[in-house]
Amino acid sequence: MATTAVNKDTHPFSKPQFEALLNRRFFYAPAFEIYGGVAGLYDYGPPGSSLQANIIAEWRKHFIIEEHMLEIDSTIMTPAPVFETSGHVARFADWMVKDTKTGDVLRADHLVKNVLEARLAGDKEARGLAAQPPKEEDKKRKKKNAKAVAVQLADEVVKEYDIILAQLDNYSGPELGELCIKHNIRNPDTDNEVGEPQQFNLMFKSSIGPTGQHPGYLRPETAQGHFLNFSRLLEFNNGRVPFASAQIGRSFRNEISPRAGLLRVREFTMAEIEHFVDPEDKRHERFREVRHVVLDLLDRDVQVGGSTQITKMSVGDAVDKGIIANETLGYFLARIYQYLVKIGINPKRLRFRQHMANEMAHYATDCWDAEIENSYGWTECVGCADRAAYDLTVHSNKTGHPLIVRQALKEPIVTEKLVAEFNKKLLGKTFGKDSAVLQQMFSAYDEGHLEKIQGELTQGATTVVTPEGRQLELTADVLSIERKTFKQSVREYTPNVIEPSFGLGRILYVLLEHNFWAREQDVERGVLSLPPVVAPTKVLIVPLSAKEEFDPLIQEVSSKLRRAGVFSRVDDSNTSIGKRYARNDELGTPFGVTLDFASVQNRTMTLRERDTTGQLIGNIDEVIGIVTELVDGSIDWAEACRRLPAYDGVQAVE
Amino acid sequence: MATTAVNKDTHPFSKPQFEALLNRRFFYAPAFEIYGGVAGLYDYGPPGSSLQANIIAEWRKHFIIEEHMLEIDSTIMTPAPVFETSGHVARFADWMVKDTKTGDVLRADHLVKNVLEARLAGDKEARGLAAQPPKEEDKKRKKKNAKAVAVQLADEVVKEYDIILAQLDNYSGPELGELCIKHNIRNPDTDNEVGEPQQFNLMFKSSIGPTGQHPGYLRPETAQGHFLNFSRLLEFNNGRVPFASAQIGRSFRNEISPRAGLLRVREFTMAEIEHFVDPEDKRHERFREVRHVVLDLLDRDVQVGGSTQITKMSVGDAVDKGIIANETLGYFLARIYQYLVKIGINPKRLRFRQHMANEMAHYATDCWDAEIENSYGWTECVGCADRAAYDLTVHSNKTGHPLIVRQALKEPIVTEKLVAEFNKKLLGKTFGKDSAVLQQMFSAYDEGHLEKIQGELTQGATTVVTPEGRQLELTADVLSIERKTFKQSVREYTPNVIEPSFGLGRILYVLLEHNFWAREQDVERGVLSLPPVVAPTKVLIVPLSAKEEFDPLIQEVSSKLRRAGVFSRVDDSNTSIGKRYARNDELGTPFGVTLDFASVQNRTMTLRERDTTGQLIGNIDEVIGIVTELVDGSIDWAEACRRLPAYDGVQAVE
Repeated sequence: MATTAVNKDTHPFSKPQFEALLNRRFFYAPAFEIYGGVAGLYDYGPPGSSLQANIIAEWRKHFIIEEHMLEIDSTIMTPAPVFETSGHVARFADWMVKDTKTGDVLRADHLVKNVLEARLAGDKEARGLAAQPPKEEDKKRKKKNAKAVAVQLADEVVKEYDIILAQLDNYSGPELGELCIKHNIRNPDTDNEVGEPQQFNLMFKSSIGPTGQHPGYLRPETAQGHFLNFSRLLEFNNGRVPFASAQIGRSFRNEISPRAGLLRVREFTMAEIEHFVDPEDKRHERFREVRHVVLDLLDRDVQVGGSTQITKMSVGDAVDKGIIANETLGYFLARIYQYLVKIGINPKRLRFRQHMANEMAHYATDCWDAEIENSYGWTECVGCADRAAYDLTVHSNKTGHPLIVRQALKEPIVTEKLVAEFNKKLLGKTFGKDSAVLQQMFSAYDEGHLEKIQGELTQGATTVVTPEGRQLELTADVLSIERKTFKQSVREYTPNVIEPSFGLGRILYVLLEHNFWAREQDVERGVLSLPPVVAPTKVLIVPLSAKEEFDPLIQEVSSKLRRAGVFSRVDDSNTSIGKRYARNDELGTPFGVTLDFASVQNRTMTLRERDTTGQLIGNIDEVIGIVTELVDGSIDWAEACRRLPAYDGVQAVE
Repeated sequence: MATTAVNKDTHPFSKPQFEALLNRRFFYAPAFEIYGGVAGLYDYGPPGSSLQANIIAEWRKHFIIEEHMLEIDSTIMTPAPVFETSGHVARFADWMVKDTKTGDVLRADHLVKNVLEARLAGDKEARGLAAQPPKEEDKKRKKKNAKAVAVQLADEVVKEYDIILAQLDNYSGPELGELCIKHNIRNPDTDNEVGEPQQFNLMFKSSIGPTGQHPGYLRPETAQGHFLNFSRLLEFNNGRVPFASAQIGRSFRNEISPRAGLLRVREFTMAEIEHFVDPEDKRHERFREVRHVVLDLLDRDVQVGGSTQITKMSVGDAVDKGIIANETLGYFLARIYQYLVKIGINPKRLRFRQHMANEMAHYATDCWDAEIENSYGWTECVGCADRAAYDLTVHSNKTGHPLIVRQALKEPIVTEKLVAEFNKKLLGKTFGKDSAVLQQMFSAYDEGHLEKIQGELTQGATTVVTPEGRQLELTADVLSIERKTFKQSVREYTPNVIEPSFGLGRILYVLLEHNFWAREQDVERGVLSLPPVVAPTKVLIVPLSAKEEFDPLIQEVSSKLRRAGVFSRVDDSNTSIGKRYARNDELGTPFGVTLDFASVQNRTMTLRERDTTGQLIGNIDEVIGIVTELVDGSIDWAEACRRLPAYDGVQAVE
């Protein structure tokens, strides 16, 4: 539904007001708050839980149902050997530095970013370029980096900082340490120097069972659960590839010093797809459906060149030009874009950024992030990685359990090649212990070498040199080399994996930011213009009076809406209708229906739209029909206005 | 929908066949299987995930939406102080014993139960009472306790064992140790003696943040997340009580030696309700709606008396007689019953058992378990505990954050009482340091004492004795005692909590057992008669041929079903229709529609019901309408048979 957003996009974003609303209406709050809280852990209250449930429901529809994915639900607690094999025990780590005096721990890349950005902001201010009021974010930084404010930098220093920031994710730990020394980067809270960067593994560790002998980790991603079940999933799919598994579930990362609200947390709900595909054929059956989708792309080369300049390009073109590696990757980027826009992300603040070489996770060969702009900057909300055959291969090698696809070939592949055959009996007699050495040597020879020997044999004999340097002569009676025909009717391969991975908490947060604004006539209260598809409540039922004669009508409207699959709530609190609507604008409820005395007498009901506050009036059943269509997106508000007369009795009612 | 179950209930349950089906069709499987697995951890495959999602969706509808509960989603990783306060660090433990030679760890109560039950089974066999073939369960036990088979016991020993088993959950750790010694209970796997029972805390421990200084636990229940957010939830509910919060999420218990499949796991999804209620008024608004519901009750006294005899009683009667403590507890027991039966639990195998005194969790004052019979015996699947004010009180005391309800009284409570008032100036002058002592003494005196002193003062003076034994004389000019009026307009109280807590994995497992059977003509394949409301797929679409002319019809039927909210799947595999139906009977798909050449020509479609295998025929749109009503439960198969003619062309089609 295209709601007409009244001043929503032009409204200056007030972060304190936004945060106050989320807190006051219990979208979410710091977990264990009465115990002083723990950084990076949050609880969702009723509207946050509903919003999350709706984001998940739409995700399930958009991906799992639409694409017939195989949903699984695997275990969080994982025995250590699994993550030793997957490489997470050795490499799933961030670089941290310690304040040399206080021992406070900071994440190295965040430290560099915060300090350099603050210096650049100070430089801008000193040059008089900070014309617009500084953003909330800048204000905070200034506080944290008080010394950097309003100090002008040399032009070449500004340029150097810009280049560092553009490729920040590409630095190794030691390189980050060098940056700190070279640019005198200190802990902004204390102004103390920081030590050498050290690796800190981000997995939470525990122990399984009563003996303490079985270490386990909480999964930092759901992916391993898919890979370990690959054989079962393949069988469930009747052995056919490509197919995708999907999982929605909790994962854990023991972040070093999480500070950015829901954007960096230690426990989060994620949704992951593992799309298994033939490594030799990464085309996608439905690619033509998304070829035309235009994305904002920020590729690897642009970033390494020190820029963050966007290229607008259709997915089709990007794949044709090799910017996006293959159709399957392109297909998912487009589908991710469509999903995010559908649930209410502003497409103008959504870009797809390719990972640079050093930035990629240890298992990935290519990766694009869907990044969404918000008050903290550009934040990765969805990753879309090509993990190639990495995971299936390492687990298969470790366990000895084949994680492969066996594909019956329609046409058997017929090949001819030269083969060396020995007269085994004679070979043993003649060469004794060297027999095995000879067989091994010949099995390693290539076509050209065998052909040469074949020629020598027709002359009577050939001489070969063993690895130890002994010369052995072979005659045609002990060795023959002939051309043979081979027929292969089954192809075996380890599939590649394309992995779209969604951080649902991050998406939820930026979605709230993108849809928050306030009316000019009521700046104190905010409005959340959440699309109906994700809004916690779809319709608010507002009875004008608490008189008993309204009860049957409230019952009727509730139950008819419920039967139509529309989730509604009654607000029968003892306050004005205007206030009740305003309170529910804060919760993002897109529509309201008011039952007044005319409803009791004439069975009419008014219908209000949240963003425009426009009101229409009609017969109760007619209004229920229209609001149902509005909620399921089959008509928009403009169409509703064509179908029902406007209601202008607002003042009289309130 | 009342599906007509053909031989479903009389079919002898074959556990190996049942387990083979679940494994083969990937309902669930041991997690990390290719790494050798870990006891008590399972992954759900596609049908298991869907079944779980449907069980959850129906739970949400039956409880959260129906009762306007406030849903939350709180954190799993919990800082240690929370569980220190809640008592879990000290007391959330099971008793374990170690094999004195191998060091193997066993859960003490399970050991006693398994050994005594095996001896009783052996006794029955020796007495020739085991006429029917032994259950799978018995077979297993026999293997594990080979020595106990077919040995007759003295009558009084049998009686003693029965009494021990009936109150097994009531023994403390040391008592279990005494039982092992007295009855020579050894590790059945090794026949070695076992040591003294020791406590093992069931919470998984970890550490939050990079310094290692903040221990944390994985929550063993979701409940604490509700309690810590109590103030926010109360505010969200406009300060009104009663109200309930609800949460569906993962919890963790590091079980000692889990062996009973999904019934005892280390990681599980649970659904918990915390219903906050006035401790002085535990009536329930909607109790009259469930008064008539008849439950199988097994109360505390019966068990302590050594029996497991059920009493059938309506919830109304049980509350009236004080067997169930209050209306709210009774209301939830009835609602739990209705929910379980709705999703397909056999009501004949469902009982409500009250906890005995020693058995209750440390926080509970009363508790009833919904126990469901299955091949492992009677298993707790839902607990319904009255946690009183325990949790809110301890957290409030620890943190200083008030977790109370402030209730504006309609009528202020007016009380009169005698109050002692001092002439402060004169008091200080006369008694110096004793002034404070005197004031404290008088504030502690009761009404009678004050009245006596009042009498003495009218005589001129009174003498009191300080705690240190000194006599002090007070005159009427320094002390007056008068009757005063007090008005209290706000009542403050800590609410009590009634907690229904659902183990969804256990429910899923027993649901599968209760609905599993096999047709006489096809004993190899099983049928899962899952009710449509929870069945992973509602309708199977079976095209007779892979010819292209079927494609538009398949598309049409799929999309019309999707629009009607009915989840369907197409089975276009290259095998007979009979086989395709049989394969989907294993997955519990209740209905199938077949598209054949008549569909292409005349737009007819056949409709098949899973349990009866009956088939009807009708126009495509008519069949879609009827199957939609069948799935949403508004008609049953008998009604469908009245509306559509039977189809008897099965043989011809196959």
